[in-house]
This record gives sequence, structure tokens and C-alpha cells, in this order.
Amino acid sequence: MATTLIRGGTVVSATGRGAADVLVDGERIAAVLLPGSTLLGMDLATTVDTVIEARDKYVIPGGIDAHTHMSMPFGGTTASDDFETGTRAAAWGGTTTIIDFAVQKFGELLQDSLQAWHEMAAGQCAVDYSFHQIVGDVNDASLAALRALADEGITSYKMFMAYPGVFYSDDAQIVRAMQVGADTGLMTMMHAENGPAIDVLVAQLLAEGKTTPYYHGIARAWQLEEEATHRAIMLSNLTGAPLYVVHVSAKQAVAQLAAARDAGQNVYGETCPQYLYLSLEDNLGAPGFEGAKWVCSTPLRSKHEHHQDDIWRALRTNDIQMVSTDHCPFCMKGQKDMGLGDFSKIPNGIGSIEHRMDLLYQGVVDGRITVERWVEITSTTPARMFGLYGRKGVIAPGADADIVVYDPHGHTSIGLGKTHHMNMDHSAWEGYEIDGHVDTVLSRGKVIVDGGEYLGSKGDGVFLRRDLCQYLI
Amino acid sequence: MATTLIRGGTVVSATGRGAADVLVDGERIAAVLLPGSTLLGMDLATTVDTVIEARDKYVIPGGIDAHTHMSMPFGGTTASDDFETGTRAAAWGGTTTIIDFAVQKFGELLQDSLQAWHEMAAGQCAVDYSFHQIVGDVNDASLAALRALADEGITSYKMFMAYPGVFYSDDAQIVRAMQVGADTGLMTMMHAENGPAIDVLVAQLLAEGKTTPYYHGIARAWQLEEEATHRAIMLSNLTGAPLYVVHVSAKQAVAQLAAARDAGQNVYGETCPQYLYLSLEDNLGAPGFEGAKWVCSTPLRSKHEHHQDDIWRALRTNDIQMVSTDHCPFCMKGQKDMGLGDFSKIPNGIGSIEHRMDLLYQGVVDGRITVERWVEITSTTPARMFGLYGRKGVIAPGADADIVVYDPHGHTSIGLGKTHHMNMDHSAWEGYEIDGHVDTVLSRGKVIVDGGEYLGSKGDGVFLRRDLCQYLI
Amino acid sequence: MATTLIRGGTVVSATGRGAADVLVDGERIAAVLLPGSTLLGMDLATTVDTVIEARDKYVIPGGIDAHTHMSMPFGGTTASDDFETGTRAAAWGGTTTIIDFAVQKFGELLQDSLQAWHEMAAGQCAVDYSFHQIVGDVNDASLAALRALADEGITSYKMFMAYPGVFYSDDAQIVRAMQVGADTGLMTMMHAENGPAIDVLVAQLLAEGKTTPYYHGIARAWQLEEEATHRAIMLSNLTGAPLYVVHVSAKQAVAQLAAARDAGQNVYGETCPQYLYLSLEDNLGAPGFEGAKWVCSTPLRSKHEHHQDDIWRALRTNDIQMVSTDHCPFCMKGQKDMGLGDFSKIPNGIGSIEHRMDLLYQGVVDGRITVERWVEITSTTPARMFGLYGRKGVIAPGADADIVVYDPHGHTSIGLGKTHHMNMDHSAWEGYEIDGHVDTVLSRGKVIVDGGEYLGSKGDGVFLRRDLCQYLI
Amino acid sequence: MATTLIRGGTVVSATGRGAADVLVDGERIAAVLLPGSTLLGMDLATTVDTVIEARDKYVIPGGIDAHTHMSMPFGGTTASDDFETGTRAAAWGGTTTIIDFAVQKFGELLQDSLQAWHEMAAGQCAVDYSFHQIVGDVNDASLAALRALADEGITSYKMFMAYPGVFYSDDAQIVRAMQVGADTGLMTMMHAENGPAIDVLVAQLLAEGKTTPYYHGIARAWQLEEEATHRAIMLSNLTGAPLYVVHVSAKQAVAQLAAARDAGQNVYGETCPQYLYLSLEDNLGAPGFEGAKWVCSTPLRSKHEHHQDDIWRALRTNDIQMVSTDHCPFCMKGQKDMGLGDFSKIPNGIGSIEHRMDLLYQGVVDGRITVERWVEITSTTPARMFGLYGRKGVIAPGADADIVVYDPHGHTSIGLGKTHHMNMDHSAWEGYEIDGHVDTVLSRGKVIVDGGEYLGSKGDGVFLRRDLCQYLI
Repeated sequence: MATTLIRGGTVVSATGRGAADVLVDGERIAAVLLPGSTLLGMDLATTVDTVIEARDKYVIPGGIDAHTHMSMPFGGTTASDDFETGTRAAAWGGTTTIIDFAVQKFGELLQDSLQAWHEMAAGQCAVDYSFHQIVGDVNDASLAALRALADEGITSYKMFMAYPGVFYSDDAQIVRAMQVGADTGLMTMMHAENGPAIDVLVAQLLAEGKTTPYYHGIARAWQLEEEATHRAIMLSNLTGAPLYVVHVSAKQAVAQLAAARDAGQNVYGETCPQYLYLSLEDNLGAPGFEGAKWVCSTPLRSKHEHHQDDIWRALRTNDIQMVSTDHCPFCMKGQKDMGLGDFSKIPNGIGSIEHRMDLLYQGVVDGRITVERWVEITSTTPARMFGLYGRKGVIAPGADADIVVYDPHGHTSIGLGKTHHMNMDHSAWEGYEIDGHVDTVLSRGKVIVDGGEYLGSKGDGVFLRRDLCQYLI
Repeated sequence: MATTLIRGGTVVSATGRGAADVLVDGERIAAVLLPGSTLLGMDLATTVDTVIEARDKYVIPGGIDAHTHMSMPFGGTTASDDFETGTRAAAWGGTTTIIDFAVQKFGELLQDSLQAWHEMAAGQCAVDYSFHQIVGDVNDASLAALRALADEGITSYKMFMAYPGVFYSDDAQIVRAMQVGADTGLMTMMHAENGPAIDVLVAQLLAEGKTTPYYHGIARAWQLEEEATHRAIMLSNLTGAPLYVVHVSAKQAVAQLAAARDAGQNVYGETCPQYLYLSLEDNLGAPGFEGAKWVCSTPLRSKHEHHQDDIWRALRTNDIQMVSTDHCPFCMKGQKDMGLGDFSKIPNGIGSIEHRMDLLYQGVVDGRITVERWVEITSTTPARMFGLYGRKGVIAPGADADIVVYDPHGHTSIGLGKTHHMNMDHSAWEGYEIDGHVDTVLSRGKVIVDGGEYLGSKGDGVFLRRDLCQYLI
Repeated sequence: MATTLIRGGTVVSATGRGAADVLVDGERIAAVLLPGSTLLGMDLATTVDTVIEARDKYVIPGGIDAHTHMSMPFGGTTASDDFETGTRAAAWGGTTTIIDFAVQKFGELLQDSLQAWHEMAAGQCAVDYSFHQIVGDVNDASLAALRALADEGITSYKMFMAYPGVFYSDDAQIVRAMQVGADTGLMTMMHAENGPAIDVLVAQLLAEGKTTPYYHGIARAWQLEEEATHRAIMLSNLTGAPLYVVHVSAKQAVAQLAAARDAGQNVYGETCPQYLYLSLEDNLGAPGFEGAKWVCSTPLRSKHEHHQDDIWRALRTNDIQMVSTDHCPFCMKGQKDMGLGDFSKIPNGIGSIEHRMDLLYQGVVDGRITVERWVEITSTTPARMFGLYGRKGVIAPGADADIVVYDPHGHTSIGLGKTHHMNMDHSAWEGYEIDGHVDTVLSRGKVIVDGGEYLGSKGDGVFLRRDLCQYLI
Repeated sequence: MATTLIRGGTVVSATGRGAADVLVDGERIAAVLLPGSTLLGMDLATTVDTVIEARDKYVIPGGIDAHTHMSMPFGGTTASDDFETGTRAAAWGGTTTIIDFAVQKFGELLQDSLQAWHEMAAGQCAVDYSFHQIVGDVNDASLAALRALADEGITSYKMFMAYPGVFYSDDAQIVRAMQVGADTGLMTMMHAENGPAIDVLVAQLLAEGKTTPYYHGIARAWQLEEEATHRAIMLSNLTGAPLYVVHVSAKQAVAQLAAARDAGQNVYGETCPQYLYLSLEDNLGAPGFEGAKWVCSTPLRSKHEHHQDDIWRALRTNDIQMVSTDHCPFCMKGQKDMGLGDFSKIPNGIGSIEHRMDLLYQGVVDGRITVERWVEITSTTPARMFGLYGRKGVIAPGADADIVVYDPHGHTSIGLGKTHHMNMDHSAWEGYEIDGHVDTVLSRGKVIVDGGEYLGSKGDGVFLRRDLCQYLI
């Protein structure tokens, strides 16, 4: 087994940072040790196979993107990144683990959907991966399958309070599933928007000729995110199921999560980079059909209502625990343009998997969060939340050697003609300039990105069986 | 320099736990490495001077008690533990760092008080120590001294909203000091009780013949802690000073802290073991004068009002960030008994320094908190909060080798006739039985407690210069 | 037209009380005047046809019960009071106006249901009456009918978030109806319980053999009232429709209403006497099948959770604006007993119409509310809330002479064998003793109850066309 | 005794409005009766001495301004209106009762101060008047005098958390006084600003050369109003004393009041017209020394922080119960100009007594409040709050005939060269145009303003002994 020494860098954890060398032996971290490359008289630098210099750089656990949708079927088309292209883009951006979603559609067996996703991903991925299970048809059979899901290494499942007729579950179905969640310890993930109410507004807006992407944001009013968030919290309270609300975008939903935390509930929330930087007016409201690039749900919110400040604040005080991308890219040509003249037909999704680590590091530079919090919300907490900690999410002996050498003095320019590797014909982040740079990426001990080159191969990544949530008591 | 290998244990951090060996070289941790005692072919167990077996035990960073009062002058007497006896008791209990308080009295120069405390502690301590600075006389000179305090390695100061005529500062004084706190980054620590109002109630109760220890708890009503907590938060909001509220005991004060956190303020809170286990009725209200043992301020609260549940909950959700003891022991004979017939003359204080780690571990056993949270609230966060992290509060290379081997299968019986080493003629915790045990304690690489013996010496502990708070952004 | 002078009493309004005589001329109040029975030299007592002595008694506007269900079809049976028996009982109890509900069932035309209820009530009533409209089938036709409803003198409609398959509306339907409410000013009344979730719990409890009336209260958990209340508030916020939540029973729902008020929303709440006095344990949990008497929805809440104190407090501070009965009586024999062995088959409802004024007056005696607040929550606010003020709800010239002479020194014993006149084979209030008594009741100038005798006739009461809510800005 | 009939108008109460005639007999209202001027055949219009036509006009109870400071000594000068000029201006503006403040200074006997104010007011007033008692020196003697105050017809007293060295009471003093408030039922009125903290900021601003009126608003930061409001609420909670917070100007203080109400405390709040219309930037920040006109405490708040919207909203939902003026006028020349070059020397106060009814009526026109709420917050609630209801605050038989005929179709231009009658050399309201007009004012049956003429005399007004608060339970 090959050995590697990453030396001279500053190792960052969720609680602090310190000068340390990291010794990798094969796929795992063997030791974290005092800088200087010697131990009890042994000169490590000459002993190991490879030395990576990390002077003046951060050595951090590889990013974990706990919310991606490769090849996701949606609105008659399929997300443009598959497991190969999407995970390669992840690697470029310092993300070494993804958790995607197996999609049970109405009428399908839950087990079959999981099997299908296993087949789609196997041998394709650049980095390690796991799945959450989407439950799209609650019935006795699917609840039984849910109850057995942890045996498959899948310890979280997702439901939708939005998208009636597609993924939607009503409250009776949610209660039944959450009861299983409470019994088994599976984490319930919730898309919290009131779909039936949204659909009324969508139909009315279209009938009024309000068909541009901007109205996607109007139809999905903050009240309907706040409401569904509160409802999910109360059903969690009723059943005792731990709850994780995905892609929180409205400050009022943040307030609901904070209130639930204040009351001691096991309720968590995730936000995404788009809710920290982009807005209804500047993006969804871009001229012509341009806004379609940013059609995603929950939608971008109004910049006049100060949602972003509240979400950054919640990230600081841990009312929002982590940041995922909800990566679900669609090309403008042939996909997003299905919604020309009808915003409701625009496939919902933004591609950000490659940029999450950089976009959040910019929050460090801007004084929004500390370096430690950056590591926590992009890697350590995702690992703990979804049962990967120990193996992922930390620089510690025994952990997989998923390591990013990040240069705080580097620079990253985002955009189509420049550096992105996602399978999209545009970028939602065109023109963003980041004061930092992913220099080197190791996945289970193998250098897969270095010196501006991708050095890995399709199939490097393996499926990760997950434990139950490690963030609860 | 001697080398030690702690092997086979489970190393616990604030975010997780894992099997790992810890290599100590001299006073510091040299490496954390895969269990098995070999590294790149070298057999460490035979290389090092000493091997400590930690199989089936937790290996944790030594406890940090950020609130102690050795030899504290109070009410005409002096706390019964001095730096020698108090820190030795700390060592017995797995606490390897204390932060005590230098006390500027009215009319004194702040610098002189710090010097006096340095002299009191130097050469006496069993474990490392630092000081917070009590500001008992706000004036131009003391504010100038405060402004220079970080140069002395002192990065926090404390004020009292209670004790008029003794330590009390009025709001004008608090604002002036907090302005310095905001400018310098010093942490403002606050005893948050409305002293002038309390003194009215005390005088009235005594006039009514209500003189027993129980009325200490009645006089110091929760409204007066809640009020002062809110006031301190607002003055922090006004000035921009970070704030740390000491010894929070009322659930309503917890709610104020939670609200401040929800609003993004840099406001923190500490509680103490007594507020998690003891009560107005069962302890302060004990027959005769017995309740004097538990006279401390803030007081024990009514068990009928569910304060303890709320504080445990706040410990879980990080609305209370850490647990100190407020160790300030007084003997019943010759000290507490000064208040026979007048509860207001009972010296305020409880001795718990030896039991904090155990009492909180019991919270793990009882399902209140996780092992990780135990480490976080007793060691990692105290280190971060008060600028010691990196050197203290974590098992990582470069950190001081302050390490506790804790046996989760051990047992600890607390009480006078049994195991305590504090200089007290009673125990506030008599009869508490803990499902865990401090087996071995290292302080900067030296084993000072092991096998039920104290192996250290007076003067082992050194003064710690502290950085500014590492918990803020 | 006959003239009546009510003299020597204390006239009470929502804001105060004062000694005054009331002159009735025909159906209306002609004047309120200084006591003494003279005006500008004219001796009124000898001028009028009738003099009613009210010395030492309260002269109050007749009670308005804004929530009754005469002959309500429910669960395969029909409420045991019809408009004749129910309104006569109302008269006995000092209530001179009821607002009942016309019930549109699924598949029916809304107009037809209103017509049916007109037919049921016409010529039957002892006191004046009006209707709210239940919307049980939201579609283009019913929404159009709703939009025209104010022209019929009906200015409020009710929807159900409970009872799937019966009265239930989903959120899409609620949004569509509320949009009409916002446009027209009609008041939206909401039964706020999450029906789909309740039905899951009901089925599970029954499957577990938990079939007694007590489990009715368990299935309808407070979380599901709180949740639906919040949801209704948010949909009201979204659409701009004013909202009135019926039969609030959980303190957590009260907190939601208070929060909405604090935020300035036009959101109101009603409670009922049962939620102020009765409990899950003492009543629903009565031995055997006895608890069936108190099966109503929302259910009685646990006495251990202090709901009643919070509701009384909300009544004081106007977070709950008024008290209705939700009068919907069923006999034990032949009706309630349909649910022997299956609590879900027990018809939901309690009969209280005769006792509301007395039960709330007991709140005055007990120091819960003032006499003024009693008048406000039982008469003045109901009149304002539902567009009857001026004609009803106040002792003022021009108002209908619906007047109650209430004796605060009287006594009322409630119970079957004693004084009640509702068509029920039991009383939900058996054994309640009230420190007050309804002495004399006038309806539009006619004395219908006096001296322990009913002096009115079937058909005295007429239909009241109502204005829009007079409580809003 | 003379008789008067006010006919054809719309009589407005706190709960509704209706066409009615009002018959005045001597000083009191004898009857409220059906319009048409006949009663039981008697033609009233020809019987009475005087007929006032009120067609298309509102007939309302005379305004009650519960917070005025005639001849108030402050900052080395005296408020420019004395009881003669100030109450005459009140009359012009439709206010027929004032409650002024007797000022106990430090070192004075409380009784003496009350006597002094009696002497100042007796025989001078155009309208009826009463006093609150300012307690400026809490000691055993003043507390004893306070305990006896209700016997003098004085049922409220005021303390200051601001103005150290002048009116300031510390928390110990407040607790002692509030205990008397709780025992006696006297209402505690509180100027809630943290004076000691403000004084620090004032001194610092002046030292920095920030001396213009604008900095008055900066020094008196909202945090210091919020804080003191919360503190007063908690001391009220501790002691059980009912509390009335004067001149609330910060939305955060409003939130504290709302929270106290939600918790059921007997806590009330008053705002003033200036906080509803004027702002830090537009008024205090006017060029040069112009801003001195609007120097009052609490100060005008920033228009960028939306305080006004929140206060209007609180007025609607009764979290703020009433509106007074805090009338305390000073001329620019010879008074306000004492603070040229030092804002802290500008006498604090604005003159609004003449405009309160109009300024609030504009809130009706602007859709902020209803006509009923206008009457409630300017007359009915002030009467109830301070024990005058029955005699004042309502149009009802037996009440004093303090009546205003208000023309909603009239117009009032406010300003110096125009209509104001206050003894000021400027107007704080110059240029305000109101869509309404005070046409006729009766004080105890006597027409004192009519047809643009003042018809009263000095000494018309008499001292009012007040009952305890009628707003509590």
C-alpha cells in the first residue's frame, strides 16, 4: 500500500486548527502528527512514497455534498449530470463524497428503485457515494421496506410536501412514514413546501399570462415554505421522528427551525449556496428567459426581505447545520427551454456541486463564518448527520484519506468558459470570483485532482453503507 | 524528554470518537495514530518510555474548569480551598486546567490585584491555571488597565450586577467596560442578577424572621436573574461586546440566551452541576441549617418549575455552551455557620471542582448528552471560549498532553468519608453515585493521577497566557 | 307598539357599567337614560306599558351564540336539538341570537344547502337567528356562490381541515376559498385540526383495541390542532383573508393565535365553555362509556397541561375574542351509543347553549374576567365579529331590545333533573352550580323568559341578514 | 339647569357607532335616545334650552389626555404652557380632561408636591383635570404617603428609570414602590429608559463634538428603551404591581409589551403622536438647531427601522392601549436654545395637546384604525385606565357631558400662523393637514368651543378624584 505525507499545512477541524502533518497509509489516514516530518527519530518524509507540500495551506477533510440528484428524472427530462460527470465535477471542487437520492415513484417497489440507483451509479463515480431513499408511494409494502432500509446501509429517506401527483405525500402518509423513522432511527428528510397551495397559485399566474421564470418565485411564496416547515416540525413532534429540512430558503422557515431547536426538538436544516448569494430579482427576474437558469425549488427569495442575512446568521449559530447543493442541473437548450412560455414546465434545478466548497469559503473571506465552521458545515456535520463520521468528515487516524489541500491565497474564477466541469451548457455562477482555491484532492488516499489536472478514473468511488445519524442524542 | 503511548482506547472529540493511540513526547502530544502501536513498520510500544493501556476506555482531553475561586475573599472569610488543595482536587477529578479570578476590589488598582493573584497561585498548583480579571471598580485607570489586559495573557474580565457595595457595577460602569470589551475583543463575563432588587427582598425577609437558608433562594427570585440576563444582553447589543453569562440557573434566563442566539448575538452561557441536579426544596430547604451547604448565587431553583430539564436541553442544543463549577467552597464550621440566624451572612459557594467531569458523565449515562457533547462542554468549548484551544481542549498533535483516561465501566462514589480531596468539612454531593471513573490523568505529559494515587507535586501547574476567544467569528 | 321600562339596574357594556334605565319602544331600545324614571319632567314609569324592576341586577345585551348546530347531520344521525328546542333552550339561558350553520355537502349546490337550512329554521325559532355557510365542496360553482353570499345576508363561511371524506377541504381548496374571502370581506371560519393525520392515529388506536371515548382525545393530539391553526394563519397571511378559528382548545393553538395578533394579522379565535372547565381525564376518561357525553372536536385536553389557564388568560388579553358553544347535542341512547366499542363512531358534540351565559358568569365570580369582559365575549364581540352590531350586542338606542336581566345574587343549578331545556337525555354539565341567574329575557322587546317561565312562542325569532365583520380595520 | 339636545349625529363608542340623539341636563348626560327628537310623544327639540345639530358628524366623548406637564420644571426652565393656556389649547383640540403630574423632587415631602400642584391648577383650568404623582424620592415617608394616595383621589404614580440625579429611581426603589402599587392597586407608570447608560453615551458624544439635536436620538438608543421596558415588566412580574409604560417609541419595546400581554401580565403601554408621525432623520436631524423642536424623551426613532408601522399595528391589536401627548412645550427662544452647542441642555418636550384628537383621526382617514378605535384610544381607555370611566370616556346617561362634535368632512391646518393656541413660539406639527375638524366641544354640559370661538372661562375645569384602574381584572 502506498504511503503519503501531507506536510507543513494547517489541519482544520470543526473546533480548531493547528499545524500538523498527515500520514496516509493506503486508503486511510494512519496518523496526524507534529509538523517536522519526524516521529521518534524516524524521518517520515524519506520513508513515505509521496510527499505533498501544504505550507500556508489548509488541510481539510474532503467535502460531503449530502444532497445531489444525478440523472434525476424530473418534468419529462433527466438531470444533465450523470454519476460520472457529476462526481468528477465534485472532485474538481473538493467534494469527495456525495449522497444522492434513489427515487421510488408511485407504483414502484421501494427496493426496486434502490436497486436501479445502485446500478446507475456502480462503477461510474469519481468519488464515494451513498443514497438517501425517496419515498414516493407510502403503503404497507413501502413502509416495510423502509423499516428494513438500514440493513442496506441507507439510513435516511426523503418525502415531499410539494409536487402533488409526482412525489407528494399527504400528512397521513407523512405520519405513517415518520412513525417508522421514530422506531428505526432513520432520518426523515423533508422538502417543505405546501404543494397543493402552490399549484393553485401557479395555475392562476399562468392564466393571467404571468409565464416568465420570475413567477416561479412568486408562486412559491415564503408563506408556503414557512407553513410546510412548521407542519413537518409538528408531525416530527407528534411522532418523535428526527427531521432534516432540505434546502431552506426563507428566513421565516429558519425562524421555525430555530424555535424547534429552542424547544429541544431533534430538527435540523440544510441550506444551499444559491440561497446565500442569489435572489428573486437579480436572477429569477433576469431579462427574457435567462431566469430559467435559476429555477429551483424552494425558489430564490427577494433580496428586499433580507433572507440571506438571516440564513448566514443561522449558519453561524447552528440553527442551520450544514450546506448541500441540491445539485440538479439542466441545460438551457433542450431542457430548461421546455418552459418557454410556461415557467411551471421549466425543470427545477441548479448545478453547484463543483462550487460549494469555494462558495462557502468565500463566506470565510467575507467574515460570515470561521474556517472551522466552513469545515463543519461542508464536511464534518454532513458526515455526522448521515452516519459517515469516523470514516468521513474528519482528519483523524482511521478515517478514509479524503483530504483537500486548500489554498487560501489562491483564486478561483467560476464560469462556463473557464473552469467548470459539470455537464451543463451554462453556469448558474458565471462570473463569481472566489478568494481561495482547491489545490489537491485525495479520495481514499489517491490523488485525484492536483495541479489543475484530474488524475482519477471513473469507478474510483465506491458505495458507502451508512450508520444512523451521529448528531442526535 | 520522556515518551508515552496511550494505546487501545477510544479517543473522543467534540464531533466524534474513534479507536486511536496517542503518542506523547515530553509535554505535548506528538501524534494521534491508528491503533496497533506501529507506524510505518516501527513498533511504538517498545520505543516509548511508557505505555498506558486504555482498552475499553475513553481517552479525552483533560477537563477545563473555567470558573473557580480559590482562596476567594467573600463575606468576611475566604474560600476554603487554596490553589494547592483546589487544583489537586481538580486533578483527582480529571480537570487539568482551571481559570480562576483575580479580584479587583473597590479602590484597588486592577494591576495590583492581578499581581496579587499571580503571587497566590505561583508554585502552588497541581494543574495549569489562568485568570479572569474581576473588575470591581470601574474608572479611567481600571479601564485603561483593562485595555492592556490581553498583553498579560488575560483575555476575559468579569462584572457583577449583584452584590451592591461589594463587586456591583451599575449600568453606566458596565457600558463603559463593555465598550473596552468590544474594542479589544476581551470577553465580558457577567454575574447576572439584579442586586439592588435582591437586597430589598433580603432585608424584608429577614425583617419578617425568614432567616433560614431556604430564603436565600426566595430572595434571589428567577425574575431577577432573567432581568439581569436580558439587561446584559441588551448592553452587549448596544456596545458590540461579546458576552458570557456565568452560572445560569433559571430556565427563563436560558430563554433569554436562546433568543439572543437566535438573533445572532455573540452571547454565551455557562451552567454548573448544581443547577443540573440540586433544588431549592431538596437542598436549600433541608432541615435546620443544613441548607447552608448549598447557598450559592445564583441560587438553586424550585424543582416544581422544571428548570433542570430546560438547562439540560439547552446544553444539548448549544444555547448553553459549557459547564463550569463556580467552585467556591466554604466549611460549615467557622464559615457557613456565620449565617446562622441570617441567611444573608452565609458565604456563597459550593465546592464541585473534583466532581464536574463525573457529574456530567452521569448525564451521558442518563441519556441527556452524548459522550462527544460531554467532552465539548467540559473541555473543548471552555478552551475555545477562553483562548486556550490548540494547547488545551483537544487530543491533537501539538496540544499539551493533558489527557484523561476515563473508564465508562468504572464507578465513583462521592462524599466526605470517601473520595473527595477538597478542603471542605462536608460535601455538597454526598451520596452521589456515578457510573464512570477517572482512571488516569496526565498533565503536560506527566501522569499525576493513576491507580487511585496522586502522583503529582505542588507547582506542576503553570500559568497559561490566553488568546482571545476562539469561539466567535 | 308596547313600551317597557327596565329600571333601577346596572347597565353593562363591554367597556363599563353604570346605573341606567332602559326604555323599550316596540322591538327596539328607544333610550338609555338616567335612573329615576323621569325625563325632562315626564314620569316614564307611569307612561310606559310595562315596568321591569332591575334593582341590584345587571342589564345586559342578550347573549349571542355564534356557533350552534341545530339538527346537524353527523355520523349517520342528527343533532338532537332542532331549531325549536335549541333556540328555546337558548332563550332560557339568556341567549337571544344564534348563528347556525348551513351545510353544503359534497356534490350539493351551495345555494341549495342555504335554502334547506332556511326552510328548517323558518317559523321554528324562539330567538333571532342567522347562518354561517359551511363549504363542503369547493369548485367553480361554489366559489361563485360564495362570492354572492353577502347578498343573502350571510357574511361568513366555514371550512374544515378535519374530517376527510366528509367536510374536509385540502389546502388548495382553502386557498381558493380564502381568496374569495379576501376579495369579498367574508369571514373565513376554520375548524383547525389536521384530519388526515388524525385519521391515521384513530385507525391505529382502534387496531390496538383502544376503543373507549378517552382515546378520542388521544387521537386528536394537540400537535394536530396547533399545526392546523398555524397553517390556517399562514394561508390567511398568503391570501389576505380574515380568519376566525373555531373552538380553540389547546394552549399551543392559543399561542399561535397570539403570535398572529402580535404580527398584526386579522386572525381571531373562539373557545367554548367545555375547554374552560372540562378535561380529558375527568370527563372523556370517565368510567365505562360515560366519557361519550364529552366527545367533541377539538377534544377536551389534559388537565395536567394547563390548557385552561392559558385559555382564560387569552380571554382576558383578547387573544381569544369570544366564547360560543359549538352546541351540537346528541343523546346517549340511540346516538352517542353508536360508538360503543369504537370511539370514532360516537357523534361529536356537546350541548351547552342553555348554559353559556351562566358558565361564563361563573368566570366573573371566580375572578377570571370582569363583568364587562363577560358581556364583551358573550355578546358584543360576537355581534361585531359577525356583522350584527348596532342591532345586537349592545344596550343602545336603535338596537333590538334583546335584553337580559341577570341577577348576580341568584343561583343556577345545572343538570338533567333540574332546569335544562335542551333535547338531550343527559347533561354535559350535570352538577355545575353557578353563582348567578338569568331572571328575565327580552327578545326584540318581548319578554320571553321571566319568573321561571317561558313566555315566548315558536316563530318569535326571525332570520337576521348580517353585515360584514365590524371588528376589522 | 340648562338642557341641551345634540341631534342627528352618529354617536361613537369604543365598540360601535349608531345614529342617536344625546340629551344633556345640566352637567351630565341624561339620555341617549333614538334620533328624531321625540320620546314617548314628547318633542324634545322644543323642550330643551339648546339644540346642537350634528348631522353627518361624529358625536364622541371628549378626549382625555392622560399625560401632560403644565408648568413642568425641567432643566432649569419651566414648560411654557401653564394650566390656563395648556387646558384652553386642549379644549380647542377636543380634549376635555387632562391628567397632569405632581412632581415630588428629591428631598420634598410627597404630600407637599401634590399640594403645590393643586394650588397651581386650581381655578386656572379650561377643562377638568387630575394628577398622577411623580415619586422622585423613595423613602419610608414617601412610601407611606403613596400608600395613602388613593384617599386623595390620586390612583397612579410615576417613576423614572432615566434622568439620574433628577427623577431617577434605582431598581431597589422601584421594587419598594411597586410593592405598594401591588398592595394598593395604584397604577405604576414608568418612564422606561436606562438613564445611567444614556448618560455615558451623552457624555461621550459631547466629548466627540457631536452636540446637535440629532445626537439626542443617538444617545437614547432603542436598546436602552427596550431594556428598561423589559426590566420594568420583570419588576412588575416580581411584585405583582400593574404597570403602565409611558411614551413607547421603539418597536422593540412594543415587542416586550406584547410578550408580557401574551403571558397574561397586567402591563400596558401608551404612545404619543410624535412616535406615529415624526422621525430621527426628518425632525431631530433637521438643519442647524431646528431639530431642538423635537427633542423629547423617549426620542424620535429612525424612519429606516419601521418603528411607526409597528406602533400603529400595536395600537390596532391593543398591545399599545392608548395615546397621550406627553405635552411638555418649550419655546425655541429662551428655552430650547439653552441647548445650543449641547443637546443635553435642550429642555425635553413637545407640545401636542391641541392636536392629539386630530392627529389620531388622521389615522382613521389613512386606514390605520377605525373610528371606534380612535374613540377608544383617545378617550374610553384613558378613562378606564385611570379610574375615570363612567364619569368620563363614554357617551352614556350619568356621564359628564364632555362631548365633542367632530366633522369628518372638515379640515384642520396645523401651524403657528394658523390655529394653534398653545403657548409656544413654534409648532412641532407645522404644516400638518388633517381631514377632519373639531366643531363643538362641551365640558360638563357647557359649550366651550364652537364656531371657531372659545366660549369658556378660566376655572371651568375642576379637579377629578379618580378611582382605581378599571381596565384590570
